[in-house]
Amino acid sequence: MGFIIRAATLEDCKDISRMILELAEYEKVSDQVKITQRDLEQDGFSKNPFFHGIIAEVPEDLKSKEGHTKVGYALYFYTYSSWKGRAVYMEDLYVMPEFRGKGIGKALMSKVSQLGLAAGCTQLNFTVLDWNKSSLDFYLKQGCWDVTSDLGYHCMRCEGVALEHLAQGDL
Amino acid sequence: MGFIIRAATLEDCKDISRMILELAEYEKVSDQVKITQRDLEQDGFSKNPFFHGIIAEVPEDLKSKEGHTKVGYALYFYTYSSWKGRAVYMEDLYVMPEFRGKGIGKALMSKVSQLGLAAGCTQLNFTVLDWNKSSLDFYLKQGCWDVTSDLGYHCMRCEGVALEHLAQGDL
Repeated sequence: MGFIIRAATLEDCKDISRMILELAEYEKVSDQVKITQRDLEQDGFSKNPFFHGIIAEVPEDLKSKEGHTKVGYALYFYTYSSWKGRAVYMEDLYVMPEFRGKGIGKALMSKVSQLGLAAGCTQLNFTVLDWNKSSLDFYLKQGCWDVTSDLGYHCMRCEGVALEHLAQGDL
Repeated sequence: MGFIIRAATLEDCKDISRMILELAEYEKVSDQVKITQRDLEQDGFSKNPFFHGIIAEVPEDLKSKEGHTKVGYALYFYTYSSWKGRAVYMEDLYVMPEFRGKGIGKALMSKVSQLGLAAGCTQLNFTVLDWNKSSLDFYLKQGCWDVTSDLGYHCMRCEGVALEHLAQGDL
């Protein structure tokens, strides 16, 4: 099937925003999405961007039922391990349901890996939800391993009022 | 107790490197540390650094048994949530054993939170090992929550030969 993987530009933010919502609906948490097209434009496409993106695009004649040609995306950014050094983190990997099973997800993930290796990274990191067995199986098949199951890593978060208190040092 | 928290400089990399090893020994994985002082200098203190650091320092008269005045550190970098936007990730938080219980860890974490909020972040993220109950309790007491336990997030990783295969698209 004909598709290309390319770097995302400012003009892709509308479609990325749409697909972020689609992914959140799939993950059953669309009420959690606070990010708008404008946020993506500002945070990803100004000086010192907070993330980078890549887009999977199909030709016009293969467009989706709703007329979309941008049918998948991945967001990533560079991080650091104090043991292993430079790493790349894949924040999202999404392919629209009607375009799955055609190698687009694997091609997006492959591209993020290429970019990471080119930047001197030795690790690709990301998270998966434990109930999402099909994604987990896909990742394991690509040679990834589950750091939480194997080593006991737990993701921790501070936000909202708790984060403000922490910053004020008054907890 | 007198201590200051300040931004790390190139000259701190020797002590950061020492404390990274101390932390890895505490976590029983010192054989996993591949990062050297030189890596830290290059990756944290050149253009487009992969991380930032802060240091906890005590006056000369309070130095450690081995003569160290740099007694704690945190490494952090900025990340992105496609739901919530800008976030700050705390890669390490460490205080030398003989300086614990004096509020240094909390002050380091507070500083990372301040820096994150100032950069427009709405989340502070980090990981903890499930067997490290004293750290987990400390974090929960600061108002943090366990994303892995509560939402089922698993950390996934690809590295080494598997990452190269993934980049080549031939798995």
